[in-house]
Amino acid sequence: MRKIDLNGKNKYYTLYKSIRGEILSGRIRAGERLPSKRALAQETGVSVVTVQLAYEQLLAEGYITSRQRSGYFAENIDCPAQTQFPTPKHRYPRHIPMPMPENAEQQRYILDLVKGYAPAELFPFSTWAKLMRTVLADCGEHLLERVPCCGDIQLQNAVAAYLYRARGISVEPQHIIIGAGAEHLYGVLVQLLGRGKLFAAEAPCYGKIPAVYTLYGAEVAHVAVTEAGIDLDEVEKLSASAVHVSPSHQFPTGAVMPASARSRLIAWANKSDGYIIEDDYDSEFRLEGKPLQSLAALCPDRVIYINTFSKSLAPSMRLGYMVLPPALYGEYLRLYGQSANIVPLFEQKTLALMLDGGYFERLISRLKNHYRGIRKRILQMLCELCPECEISDNGGGAHFTVKFPRAQSGLQIKQYAEKLGIKIKCLCDYLPQAPLPKAGVEYAERLHSYQKTAVINYSGVTHARLDAIAVKLRK
Amino acid sequence: MRKIDLNGKNKYYTLYKSIRGEILSGRIRAGERLPSKRALAQETGVSVVTVQLAYEQLLAEGYITSRQRSGYFAENIDCPAQTQFPTPKHRYPRHIPMPMPENAEQQRYILDLVKGYAPAELFPFSTWAKLMRTVLADCGEHLLERVPCCGDIQLQNAVAAYLYRARGISVEPQHIIIGAGAEHLYGVLVQLLGRGKLFAAEAPCYGKIPAVYTLYGAEVAHVAVTEAGIDLDEVEKLSASAVHVSPSHQFPTGAVMPASARSRLIAWANKSDGYIIEDDYDSEFRLEGKPLQSLAALCPDRVIYINTFSKSLAPSMRLGYMVLPPALYGEYLRLYGQSANIVPLFEQKTLALMLDGGYFERLISRLKNHYRGIRKRILQMLCELCPECEISDNGGGAHFTVKFPRAQSGLQIKQYAEKLGIKIKCLCDYLPQAPLPKAGVEYAERLHSYQKTAVINYSGVTHARLDAIAVKLRK
Repeated sequence: MRKIDLNGKNKYYTLYKSIRGEILSGRIRAGERLPSKRALAQETGVSVVTVQLAYEQLLAEGYITSRQRSGYFAENIDCPAQTQFPTPKHRYPRHIPMPMPENAEQQRYILDLVKGYAPAELFPFSTWAKLMRTVLADCGEHLLERVPCCGDIQLQNAVAAYLYRARGISVEPQHIIIGAGAEHLYGVLVQLLGRGKLFAAEAPCYGKIPAVYTLYGAEVAHVAVTEAGIDLDEVEKLSASAVHVSPSHQFPTGAVMPASARSRLIAWANKSDGYIIEDDYDSEFRLEGKPLQSLAALCPDRVIYINTFSKSLAPSMRLGYMVLPPALYGEYLRLYGQSANIVPLFEQKTLALMLDGGYFERLISRLKNHYRGIRKRILQMLCELCPECEISDNGGGAHFTVKFPRAQSGLQIKQYAEKLGIKIKCLCDYLPQAPLPKAGVEYAERLHSYQKTAVINYSGVTHARLDAIAVKLRK
Repeated sequence: MRKIDLNGKNKYYTLYKSIRGEILSGRIRAGERLPSKRALAQETGVSVVTVQLAYEQLLAEGYITSRQRSGYFAENIDCPAQTQFPTPKHRYPRHIPMPMPENAEQQRYILDLVKGYAPAELFPFSTWAKLMRTVLADCGEHLLERVPCCGDIQLQNAVAAYLYRARGISVEPQHIIIGAGAEHLYGVLVQLLGRGKLFAAEAPCYGKIPAVYTLYGAEVAHVAVTEAGIDLDEVEKLSASAVHVSPSHQFPTGAVMPASARSRLIAWANKSDGYIIEDDYDSEFRLEGKPLQSLAALCPDRVIYINTFSKSLAPSMRLGYMVLPPALYGEYLRLYGQSANIVPLFEQKTLALMLDGGYFERLISRLKNHYRGIRKRILQMLCELCPECEISDNGGGAHFTVKFPRAQSGLQIKQYAEKLGIKIKCLCDYLPQAPLPKAGVEYAERLHSYQKTAVINYSGVTHARLDAIAVKLRK
């Protein structure tokens, strides 16, 4: 055996590695007898115990075998080229500077009219931190316990109470499934309703919705959106298992589904045993009057109600929930009953305190006041910038659309905005790649106007940013 | 219109609801003209503004329309039976007593030899809480930012450094995907490798593994486990896209894959472009010598390395990670590049501090000392209880198996244990429902012995519990 330098600590491991190398390289042939512990100890100048340890590791990993009273023998290991041990790279830096670098987007644009969540400045961080400390103190080691598949009962109760207070929806707390944001819940829904089933999605819509459904194995049919929400003539032609809608304030068109369309959609669901996925992503932000009544309140047996806190709290929190009709709840237990809930208990407890303490509703009303001010300023700017633009805003949510009659295309609008340092998208950007099923002449006209219509999503806009853009515009 | 009691606050909403009721019930017929605002105000004794607000809400929800200079008219809404508004139940209790109730299992059994995670008593809760407070203080509002799809860079670096220190695996930090526990990552793997692909799983194994793969749409082939780990003759017969193995310490058999088998498995992966999913769930707990060398260190291009912190930290934390080979990393970016990582940033930052500060390795060595003591005591008890039992323990992980030659069946063993207040499972309980492909005579013998062999999983066992059971045994 080659000479080994056995100075320094961890002698036995060095010895083990060198013998392993000899065997893999074939310098110690398969079946060859290894020196006795005492002999090797003398040869290498280490203790017999050290050799003992090295041999045991080699035994455990199967590089050698031991035979009663005759010693240790090398195993036959044909070592493919790939099993050369890569030489480990340098240690990774232990301390990355905190806080984290601001993301590039924000530096590139003065104003981001695409970002879909509230500005961090408005988040009651000190309250949140206080509640976190409360949870740490009150729950202690119970925070380590496994969370049931649906979520923490305290949060389920808090959400149920909130839904009743804020949305007039009355649900059984245990039917509320806590999830890691809306996307995660879309994925779960595909498992619940069955892969390969047909999901109808609104077109245009938030691209993630069809993307996630497809990713998890559902078929997606894109259905045009009319002034009254998803085109029900089309829906009735499809044999879909589920229809994904945002009746209170469709994104990005802003369409609101009127009562007549709602009861027609519910009638469809009852007739065809289909489910309605009510994505209520921004109902809390309705700036005029009360939030519009939800489909879930009208037909709890056929409506899956989904909402997220990513928009109102923070996207890093990955908190959302859905309310399942009894039948699907049973299926959920069947599929996930053995699994722990995916959201850490700590976040769930903190959010429960935030809801029960009324902090969340206070945040919402602060945000709504903020958004009213922002909306007013943006509308003024638009009228100054382009008096002939056609604004459609029904007072819902944190976005509206504006049509520029003289614009050639969405691209032109975006390039113009880009020059001003504004990040923006048009309705046409939210259409699926695949062409839609024929939907009459008026749909063709709609497609044409989608090219000229920008989506003003002011969820993330602050007054500071508006000041900055105002300066730029004056130049 | 019926008389309405408009005392109390929220007059306009009460008025709105009663008119909505009249329309849905048909007492106000479709197309019927509603009284003018002034008239209704006088009739009901509220202000015109109140009526105005009620009408606006009805307009927004599409129950009425307004026509220029001719007033408001009821819409035609055919209201299916299901759209009767459910009368909301009582408010949900706002404050659920914290801390949470202890789970029933622990009360039912004196000793739980199935539970797979460390006892809460050993978790350095004060350290964890301290680190959480540090993160809150240091990161502040940056905690609200969206986390990149793979995870927080600081945690990726911390895990990479840990893998190098503890497992001798050298990986690119960005190839580490932070996930919400192992199960979540299994699901992601199905999306990465493609639904409908064949995954080979060990039999017996932890039931969740094939269950999750199947749930997300993979085909699962169960392959027998021999003394040298998964039966490679069987693997080579299948055309599987991936083989899921735990080479360091297979659960529940405890089999260790020797070096020769490892290089043979790697050769298979290279030849058939298959992937090896190395589930390294408890390698840190090897009680004798160093952890066994990982497959990932031998063949980074073909091995997906998965590990979780649920076992070592706490199951409520839902923290795990996998290291992807470059090809799959690209695919991950393609599928999930637009999504935020699913684990809250707060937990990621805290874990990063725990790893970088060396607290995690200290916890592991404390746990190992604890487990050595527990194992010793259990072995003694077993020998006293049943001298002829055959124990097989190769010093790895927090479980071993014990065969009771005179036992009739697994059921008998479990019933006997149940009488003593011990929760236990046998090897046969971890076999798939479906029969395995023929695997020779010695497999039939193995199945027979699986009936007589109990799995002693002492991950969650404390000395207090052992004392309690000792008392019981003396009686």
